Amino acid sequence: MSDPRGFPPAEYRERLAKAQAAMAKAGLSALLLTTEADLRYFSGFLTRFWESPTRPWFLIVPRTGDPVAVIPSIGVPLMASTWIADIRSWRAPDYDDDGVSLLATTLCEITSEGAVIGVPRGLATHLRMPLGDWDRVQAAVGSRRFEGDGAIVQSQRMIKSPAEIRKISAACAVADRAFARVAEIARTGVPLSEVFRRFQMLCLAEGADWVPYLAGAAGPMGYSDVISPATDRPLALGDVLMLDTGLVVDGYFCDFDRNFSLGPPEAAVAEAHDTLIAATLAGFEAARPGNTAADLFHAMDRIVTGGAGGSDAGRLGHGLGMQLTEQPSLIPADHTPLAPGMVLTLEPGMVVSEDRIMVHEENIVITETGAAWLSTPAAARIEVLET
Amino acid sequence: MSDPRGFPPAEYRERLAKAQAAMAKAGLSALLLTTEADLRYFSGFLTRFWESPTRPWFLIVPRTGDPVAVIPSIGVPLMASTWIADIRSWRAPDYDDDGVSLLATTLCEITSEGAVIGVPRGLATHLRMPLGDWDRVQAAVGSRRFEGDGAIVQSQRMIKSPAEIRKISAACAVADRAFARVAEIARTGVPLSEVFRRFQMLCLAEGADWVPYLAGAAGPMGYSDVISPATDRPLALGDVLMLDTGLVVDGYFCDFDRNFSLGPPEAAVAEAHDTLIAATLAGFEAARPGNTAADLFHAMDRIVTGGAGGSDAGRLGHGLGMQLTEQPSLIPADHTPLAPGMVLTLEPGMVVSEDRIMVHEENIVITETGAAWLSTPAAARIEVLET
Repeated sequence: MSDPRGFPPAEYRERLAKAQAAMAKAGLSALLLTTEADLRYFSGFLTRFWESPTRPWFLIVPRTGDPVAVIPSIGVPLMASTWIADIRSWRAPDYDDDGVSLLATTLCEITSEGAVIGVPRGLATHLRMPLGDWDRVQAAVGSRRFEGDGAIVQSQRMIKSPAEIRKISAACAVADRAFARVAEIARTGVPLSEVFRRFQMLCLAEGADWVPYLAGAAGPMGYSDVISPATDRPLALGDVLMLDTGLVVDGYFCDFDRNFSLGPPEAAVAEAHDTLIAATLAGFEAARPGNTAADLFHAMDRIVTGGAGGSDAGRLGHGLGMQLTEQPSLIPADHTPLAPGMVLTLEPGMVVSEDRIMVHEENIVITETGAAWLSTPAAARIEVLET
Repeated sequence: MSDPRGFPPAEYRERLAKAQAAMAKAGLSALLLTTEADLRYFSGFLTRFWESPTRPWFLIVPRTGDPVAVIPSIGVPLMASTWIADIRSWRAPDYDDDGVSLLATTLCEITSEGAVIGVPRGLATHLRMPLGDWDRVQAAVGSRRFEGDGAIVQSQRMIKSPAEIRKISAACAVADRAFARVAEIARTGVPLSEVFRRFQMLCLAEGADWVPYLAGAAGPMGYSDVISPATDRPLALGDVLMLDTGLVVDGYFCDFDRNFSLGPPEAAVAEAHDTLIAATLAGFEAARPGNTAADLFHAMDRIVTGGAGGSDAGRLGHGLGMQLTEQPSLIPADHTPLAPGMVLTLEPGMVVSEDRIMVHEENIVITETGAAWLSTPAAARIEVLET
């Protein structure tokens, strides 16, 4: 049933060929990548060690030829298990020269004088290395210069391969099964923090490799916030409980939530949930090649606000894959054309009363003719616990 | 038994006063902070939402007065629950101006023309915002300029308050209890990936809020690598199993490992474990004010390599707290004086055979007169499973 871990080298060769074609078009001699997801996308280097901020990691993708890893020696055995053959390392941390001259030398070897090297520098990116060392690298590459990568990496990562989609689908299936068991762990009197712990245990028991993200809230008539960690407040009759998880299977995320009512829901809560599902379905109907990310926003926003233009959450969904959130954003300003292989969340939210909101979220993939669900879509009627 | 979540405002006022004194000395008019740990250190803003790379978050610490948060509107309710009163927000993502002008305006309001604004730019730091927007911010603040923060934030965070130490100690106690139950989940025939899942469940059952880090390995005579995720290979008689966890309680990490032998250990394994414990104890003995980070390195390195100067892991321990790894590094070049309140890992490793290593790790805190264990130190004899 499940795919083997990782990907065959052919998958990485395809990614590389696609990036190199875009680099040629953009006049870039190489890409310099520094973040977990970008490195892993081209190498298969999967480790939770990025949790440590100490060491920088570099992958150079040249316009021709294979990628070159410039990494701390502690990562060499793992990198050597990937398809990457050219691995250069130093013993980090090195207070005199923490990979700077090794990186600069390698860039100079791989690219010619005057070359332009692309670095992701647009929205939702950052450079994961010390700013001081970044200055040093720029000064050490002669006449070469660094420019933006024209969002080559981000754009390419938006379109998932069939193998990637299977991994995201596997993550969604794990979360589906965990959500189906929430009645086992959520009862009145149980502190929300304990529900969070037990829900993460369910995710692991159902097959998650790890659970990088869990947010949620509980309160009467909804909640004021969707990004907070759990408090120790016990669940109470009448609460709406929301759990939103981004769990990982073989390096790929799901990202969706479920709402529950502790006991019979208030009419406003039941109605809000019904409306959120209707909005999600409207998003799903609009999800097909030919439409844009903005079209999905408007399809859902028409239903949740009557077309007022969204909320403080800022968007009504987004891409996902190797990261919990990726491009595009479902906002009016995002005119990214939907394309087969794009994996998205549909995430409408609405105000239930005064300062209380509810948010619903599903995961889908764009196909040649429309979209397919990756999460099993929730029913219009909010699930009731402890009836 | 357990402290309430978070810290009282007095804790943040102390942190602020200490930073402001250092800023005055360094001639900095403000600090600009962008990473999860730095923001949380001065604000108490605790959320797993940083898992999403989409949005930048900013905290400005002025030389006088209270910190100012410049953040996406989705985070306002949570930030409003902290002691931070001045919160400015925009609806992110905004493709035209993703907080750039709001940040620049706020910096200009808080600092005078010609002011120097400190930004962490040394080892183990990065700027968590798009490079392109960073250029725009620099261009939008008039005659003000950005310089390094002189490691003010990093140095200050190295010394933990009593309340912080209690949180780290609570995290260590959870891991202690989880490690004590490994025999329940690790047997020959169980895939390592399943051991990892079940161990994370034990950590949660014993009180972890979440488990951001688990690495480890299993193999005869040790392992070749300590940062890899689990494979699906079943445990076999004679394997050395190592589990290394960084779990979190109320935003604070532990970081230590345990080694187990599946069945009676090979003589070389038993001896290596004994030596690693001896090295750890030598590190503990040397851990007192008056010594430096380098002294701890040498105390352990003398035992594991006879003083050869370390290994490809690069260091024999490090600070920890709000992050899995923090400054200082236990390496020959780190002359940071040990000071009361410093929380450290002691992490000696050694070669057992050809390409096989073993690593042991404990957590300690420096006191006025020496050090105290935060993890319960392991016995010299490696724990045997399924005997």
